[in-house]
Amino acid sequence: MAHLTSSVEYGIHCLLWLVRNDGQPASSRDLAELQGVSTSFVAKIFPKLEKAGIVRASEGVRGGYLLAWPADEISFLDIVDAIEGKKPLFDCQEIRSRCALFDGQPPAWASAGTCAIHAVMLQAEQAMRETLASQSLGSVSQRFVRKAPESFLGEVAGWLGERISGRGGKGRKRTPKV
Amino acid sequence: MAHLTSSVEYGIHCLLWLVRNDGQPASSRDLAELQGVSTSFVAKIFPKLEKAGIVRASEGVRGGYLLAWPADEISFLDIVDAIEGKKPLFDCQEIRSRCALFDGQPPAWASAGTCAIHAVMLQAEQAMRETLASQSLGSVSQRFVRKAPESFLGEVAGWLGERISGRGGKGRKRTPKV
Repeated sequence: MAHLTSSVEYGIHCLLWLVRNDGQPASSRDLAELQGVSTSFVAKIFPKLEKAGIVRASEGVRGGYLLAWPADEISFLDIVDAIEGKKPLFDCQEIRSRCALFDGQPPAWASAGTCAIHAVMLQAEQAMRETLASQSLGSVSQRFVRKAPESFLGEVAGWLGERISGRGGKGRKRTPKV
Repeated sequence: MAHLTSSVEYGIHCLLWLVRNDGQPASSRDLAELQGVSTSFVAKIFPKLEKAGIVRASEGVRGGYLLAWPADEISFLDIVDAIEGKKPLFDCQEIRSRCALFDGQPPAWASAGTCAIHAVMLQAEQAMRETLASQSLGSVSQRFVRKAPESFLGEVAGWLGERISGRGGKGRKRTPKV
């Protein structure tokens, strides 16, 4: 198992489609089905992205999610933190103060400053977070676009558009799901 | 919960005591009790460190664990990988190939090269691993030693020495535990 869950992977893939969707909202269900992943799983990710202010919900029959900010201003770190929470690399339990020789009364020097082990872990975490902060959804989207044929992006926009148009027609009683 | 488990924290704290123990072996039980942490928990960490070649077991009544290498040559990355396994930051499931428009037959361009999302995660992982690789058990031990009074280190060595001396006396039938 990896440190980051598949929620992060699914979430970023979904957000990349929102970058290319020309300001049209897309539902979490449509984004999940477009990518062949679990709709219920993806449905749980979007409220976290919304809570973090990365997406906003557009209400109504043809509603869905939109990016709340320009894609260049949404970093990978923003997305990871939104989905995983600000999960630290290392949880220091201050073991240094528990030494049997202290007899339950650790001297001041034993817990002065940051534990040297924790300090290394904080450096490693910072290096990881800086890399994630340096990459935006916009820059990764551009890399993807360079690889995909022009026609493909149009086809995807068409597919998502058809899904939206197909909702809420006469006689259809299905409640639209954001 | 943090990305790295408390096994890493306990393991590194134990190894730091082996750096300062003047080549005397110490048992996992003694190291756990010295630090006021679970003996059964620590007992499960040392076989991983031994398997990775970071410590070696010295057999016999007064046996225990010793560092297998000079502390300056044991990096934090070695220890983390030994205890956690080479756990990746991100597990790419190649979602890019699953697009509904491919109808189960993704074109070559869709999976060419590394997925752009995975590439960012690999960079972040590399930044974290480089920081962990740049810090050795020896350097962190020196930082600790600068903080602790000289007498304390002698007291700990004495405490561990007494525990070893106390083992396997006449009439004692307890099997020594490494």
